Amino acid sequence: MTNTTALIRNGIDTEQVYGTLDALKAQPELARFVFRAPNRWIDGPPSRSTIQGFWGAGQEDSSRDEPFEVDASEPPILFGHNEAPNPAEFVLHALAGCLTLTIVNVAAARKVTLTEVTSTLEGVLDARGATGLDDDYRNGFERVSVTFSIKGDAPREKLEEILERAKARSVVYDIVSNPVPVDVYAEVG
Amino acid sequence: MTNTTALIRNGIDTEQVYGTLDALKAQPELARFVFRAPNRWIDGPPSRSTIQGFWGAGQEDSSRDEPFEVDASEPPILFGHNEAPNPAEFVLHALAGCLTLTIVNVAAARKVTLTEVTSTLEGVLDARGATGLDDDYRNGFERVSVTFSIKGDAPREKLEEILERAKARSVVYDIVSNPVPVDVYAEVG
Repeated sequence: MTNTTALIRNGIDTEQVYGTLDALKAQPELARFVFRAPNRWIDGPPSRSTIQGFWGAGQEDSSRDEPFEVDASEPPILFGHNEAPNPAEFVLHALAGCLTLTIVNVAAARKVTLTEVTSTLEGVLDARGATGLDDDYRNGFERVSVTFSIKGDAPREKLEEILERAKARSVVYDIVSNPVPVDVYAEVG
Repeated sequence: MTNTTALIRNGIDTEQVYGTLDALKAQPELARFVFRAPNRWIDGPPSRSTIQGFWGAGQEDSSRDEPFEVDASEPPILFGHNEAPNPAEFVLHALAGCLTLTIVNVAAARKVTLTEVTSTLEGVLDARGATGLDDDYRNGFERVSVTFSIKGDAPREKLEEILERAKARSVVYDIVSNPVPVDVYAEVG
């Protein structure tokens, strides 16, 4: 007898998750993903990314009928006009979003129903680095702190385990915490 | 005699830039910035960051009358419903936006007028890492490639120098390429 009831917990279809994991075990080549962000400068600090397609699960994804258009800029103190959040803030947003959805996925797999996940992220930097005024300072964040509030129908210890597992499996936590090789090519003139 | 003409190049007020650099030299404590992303889980993969204030130039910034609300989610193949770009795509957006505005700032400082800056970013990952199926694969991007097209009123060599300088001074290029310590705290239950 097959259980055909879709089990949705925390907004995650856990049957779909287990089906996907089985498919990846059977055909590991499906696990390759290539995400993309085509970007175009507007004027001054602002630029716009037009995010739509990606490669995943053995094919070009076609689930997005329209692209997402996302801008980045700077506040006046950094020579922009607040047209959009700045790139450093988008790194914090990416980290918050990734840790949060990984917590939600892990909790669903462990049969924990969550009622609240909020976080505050802070990234600290000294602009003497990026401005080239003093090479004793790096360009990017010296450190990032993330403070979560997590509530659900499980004891404190289990919620803490879920957070630890999410840290251990988060895509963006890994990208920010560890080095990623970045190759930059250019066609100029 | 004071030159009061604002010199705007590539949408950057170069007088303001040099004034800011002079202020940072005189008072290095102004260089400390703390950026923030408060985030709240919605349901399933989606969450929302509400980005407004930050610390910089010796005070809490008050230039944004309204917060930016930015969501993150996943496509159906990753258990979401395309409510927004996913966190890995936001990392690419942050990197594209940062390299682009750094190129634009460097070009303005070097008296080069740009006519076009476009880029395509790709980040490759194997989901066997983040799903926990195979620890031979990391969770995040194995590598990122960035391909720029840069046009302006300078010879090829000068445009290539501008790109090299931007790589050497980009906040997000540093964050992605090099490790950033990330501390995660939690209030649970």
